[in-house]
Amino acid sequence: MFSDATIEQVNDAMIQSGKAFKTYSKSSLEQRASLMRAIATEIEALGDALIEVTMRETNLPEARLKGERGRTMYQLTSYADACEKGDWLEARICTALPDKVPARPDIRKMLVPLGPVVVFGSSNFPYAYSTAGGDTASALAAGCTVVVKAHPAHPETSAMVAGAISKALTTMEMSQDIFIHLNGASHAVGEALVKHEQAKAVGFTGSFTGGMALFKWANQRKEPIPVFAEMGSVNPVFLLEEKLSSDPAGIAKMYADSISLGVGQFCTNPGIIIGIDSAALQAFISFLGEKMDAITVGKMLHQGIADAYVQKAATILQHADVSIVSSSVDAASLLAPRPIIASVSATAFLENPSLKEEVFGPFSLVVVCNSAEEMKAVAAAMDGQLTSTIMATENEALANTEIIDLVAEKCGRIIMNGVPTGVEVCYAMQHGGPFPASTDPRFTSVGPDAIKRFARPMSFQNYPDALLPDELKSENPLMIHRIIE
Amino acid sequence: MFSDATIEQVNDAMIQSGKAFKTYSKSSLEQRASLMRAIATEIEALGDALIEVTMRETNLPEARLKGERGRTMYQLTSYADACEKGDWLEARICTALPDKVPARPDIRKMLVPLGPVVVFGSSNFPYAYSTAGGDTASALAAGCTVVVKAHPAHPETSAMVAGAISKALTTMEMSQDIFIHLNGASHAVGEALVKHEQAKAVGFTGSFTGGMALFKWANQRKEPIPVFAEMGSVNPVFLLEEKLSSDPAGIAKMYADSISLGVGQFCTNPGIIIGIDSAALQAFISFLGEKMDAITVGKMLHQGIADAYVQKAATILQHADVSIVSSSVDAASLLAPRPIIASVSATAFLENPSLKEEVFGPFSLVVVCNSAEEMKAVAAAMDGQLTSTIMATENEALANTEIIDLVAEKCGRIIMNGVPTGVEVCYAMQHGGPFPASTDPRFTSVGPDAIKRFARPMSFQNYPDALLPDELKSENPLMIHRIIE
Repeated sequence: MFSDATIEQVNDAMIQSGKAFKTYSKSSLEQRASLMRAIATEIEALGDALIEVTMRETNLPEARLKGERGRTMYQLTSYADACEKGDWLEARICTALPDKVPARPDIRKMLVPLGPVVVFGSSNFPYAYSTAGGDTASALAAGCTVVVKAHPAHPETSAMVAGAISKALTTMEMSQDIFIHLNGASHAVGEALVKHEQAKAVGFTGSFTGGMALFKWANQRKEPIPVFAEMGSVNPVFLLEEKLSSDPAGIAKMYADSISLGVGQFCTNPGIIIGIDSAALQAFISFLGEKMDAITVGKMLHQGIADAYVQKAATILQHADVSIVSSSVDAASLLAPRPIIASVSATAFLENPSLKEEVFGPFSLVVVCNSAEEMKAVAAAMDGQLTSTIMATENEALANTEIIDLVAEKCGRIIMNGVPTGVEVCYAMQHGGPFPASTDPRFTSVGPDAIKRFARPMSFQNYPDALLPDELKSENPLMIHRIIE
Repeated sequence: MFSDATIEQVNDAMIQSGKAFKTYSKSSLEQRASLMRAIATEIEALGDALIEVTMRETNLPEARLKGERGRTMYQLTSYADACEKGDWLEARICTALPDKVPARPDIRKMLVPLGPVVVFGSSNFPYAYSTAGGDTASALAAGCTVVVKAHPAHPETSAMVAGAISKALTTMEMSQDIFIHLNGASHAVGEALVKHEQAKAVGFTGSFTGGMALFKWANQRKEPIPVFAEMGSVNPVFLLEEKLSSDPAGIAKMYADSISLGVGQFCTNPGIIIGIDSAALQAFISFLGEKMDAITVGKMLHQGIADAYVQKAATILQHADVSIVSSSVDAASLLAPRPIIASVSATAFLENPSLKEEVFGPFSLVVVCNSAEEMKAVAAAMDGQLTSTIMATENEALANTEIIDLVAEKCGRIIMNGVPTGVEVCYAMQHGGPFPASTDPRFTSVGPDAIKRFARPMSFQNYPDALLPDELKSENPLMIHRIIE
């Protein structure tokens, strides 16, 4: 039913996208925002039919999908608002200084769109990071056309959402080539898209292996292009003693909920928890195991993800130094793997780098340190992360800045006394982080700043006002924030 | 006298830089700004002795070097001002919304430094893009430590400037490891620096070959790191008829000066000029040839650059379709090659991609089109550029938006009725452009926005005010611009 695009279809899509870019890149901020709002409206209009299809394709429950649909619409409309507000344009005006030696001409700068963006749908967010998800919304706001490769795990969902975008383009009387939808279970489709000369940037959320393949293809091109690949992480949680002692059961409950949320299929799932050995830590571990045993999780997204979960968890559990705290793999029902809590000494953890690897699913490894020094060593040994969390009283945090600095150096978002799951769509969100969490720590894929991934600054020197884009005209007709020098 | 750093010295430098980063990354904006101003003061204190050494090492004349020294000091002090002003931090505050479902925690974001930055000194800007140049100033402002590899063409100049930085660090009572200076004529030194795990970003201004070597090394690492390589371009100039007819001699004079400025050794040198065949264009070509013949240029930076100029110009002049308009290569004095103007038909230009290549030096190729359509084809065929220039009356520009759009799509800075040489150090400057002008069109190496190359956004979630950096505290003690949501 959903056959892969041929190489000819990929080439044709990229060429059409390049042609549509000539016009769409000139659209006003208001036109882009209207298109994005129209897409949100059309997605809503798909109603329960969309939810039903996605439930069947992803095993995700109705409430989660309705929430994610709302989030997807919010992304579209809030990025539309941000697009119109124009802070992302980084508009700067340096007026002429004829008396300076040498004379300074009038120079004005703003961000302009990069060109056609190739977006890869993710499996774990069938709406919010797929067809009309955050990457597509960012690209459209930037003034870029989009070619989406649907995730093969939910092709029907993707086709329905693509249909909604097509309707919105019709309503807006805009070219259908502004958004092109392709299927591609084969890697050849992705490779052809990324390597096509019309492609100017890539957006991706998924596995390390997948993201790195795109990154390598992009850098093998005659003209390398930016790839923003968000490749997940283990999101370490550091438990400081005073805070932990105050409520080990409450913290265990909070973490059991976070680890099992969405069957652990979030890139911000807390996969490693680090504490210093004490009665409180032992109580926490025991509570966490009990809470997790009591949680019934749903099916995973698809058999491939369930198989990978079982296999990766088994690899970690096979280590001689790792102990299972709770649960066991339910071999009879691999689509509904049990949540797993395990523990290991910091010494063994530091000696076995493979224990730092992400197990995508409801799995968490507690690392037991024998001192604050050992906790620092673990913090220093962590790879780049999307998030890291510190559980500490305020006094404890103020007394442990050294460990907090080590943790902060390795992550895009640092959380105090909370859980990493739950990624707010807002201006202050950084979703991305030092490699391998993402391919470029200087960008985010969540929040309106995500638009900047797909735009580049351009200076206009000695331009008469009539020729300048509205964003840079002297009278500031769009009323946007600009730095004037 | 200036021997290459050994691999052990490179490793040691990077490790020391990594250690110093732990402290320097925590310095206040004011401390960084004070350091940068102190460096400018120490460079000035080197006085004429510095100018004399650089004249000997680079063949550049006194007036040019004094101007460049002033520009270098201005970069340091104006980026220091920008560092303190804090716009580059992109601070955003999203306060908690406890009544939202799910509740939104307090989230605040700002840019934080990437880590130790490796800076490669350029040959053509011995001050402004070398040891204490724009890359070093950007990195220090961002809160990054710096390891500079001196350009082997001016090692004594580089050592003197490094000495000035060392003095400034002493005055400021800061670690000497914040800035480390190494020599390396061998590529092995550069490769070891870029591939060292402590290196977190690279800044470079120079040739395509050099920039791409760094880019590849950076992407071969286990942890790829961002490289900003500004690799030059041919900076095409498009002459529209009405404007050209109004003053062919004046425009020719303006361009003869721009092409020969600094013996053509600027990355913004106008290397290709495109016009539509007419009496005015023929008059322009003839005037340009005459003006160039009358110009006496100085020696080039070093023998290698002079040899490359002669060889690259000869390669272009050997094309059967290319005619020499003015001058000839003076084989007797290769260090002072003559300026060269040549011309070619657009048909031949479009058929021979090698004619698009940069000839670093006082060389320009006039491309003669037989129609506006052919000019569009030439515009579409251009590679990515640092700058492109349009010479047009306002009416002509308004009537030719199609060609201007084609030109704009390929460049970082578009100039109306001016010359591309002369890169203002200001907020609105974009110095960078679509590949191959630079490795990432989303960043600039000139102007305070250059700081952003070496910083990454970081979110602080649910942080008590006492633990937040001053930049994000609720009372805004640093009085910086922040987006509040």
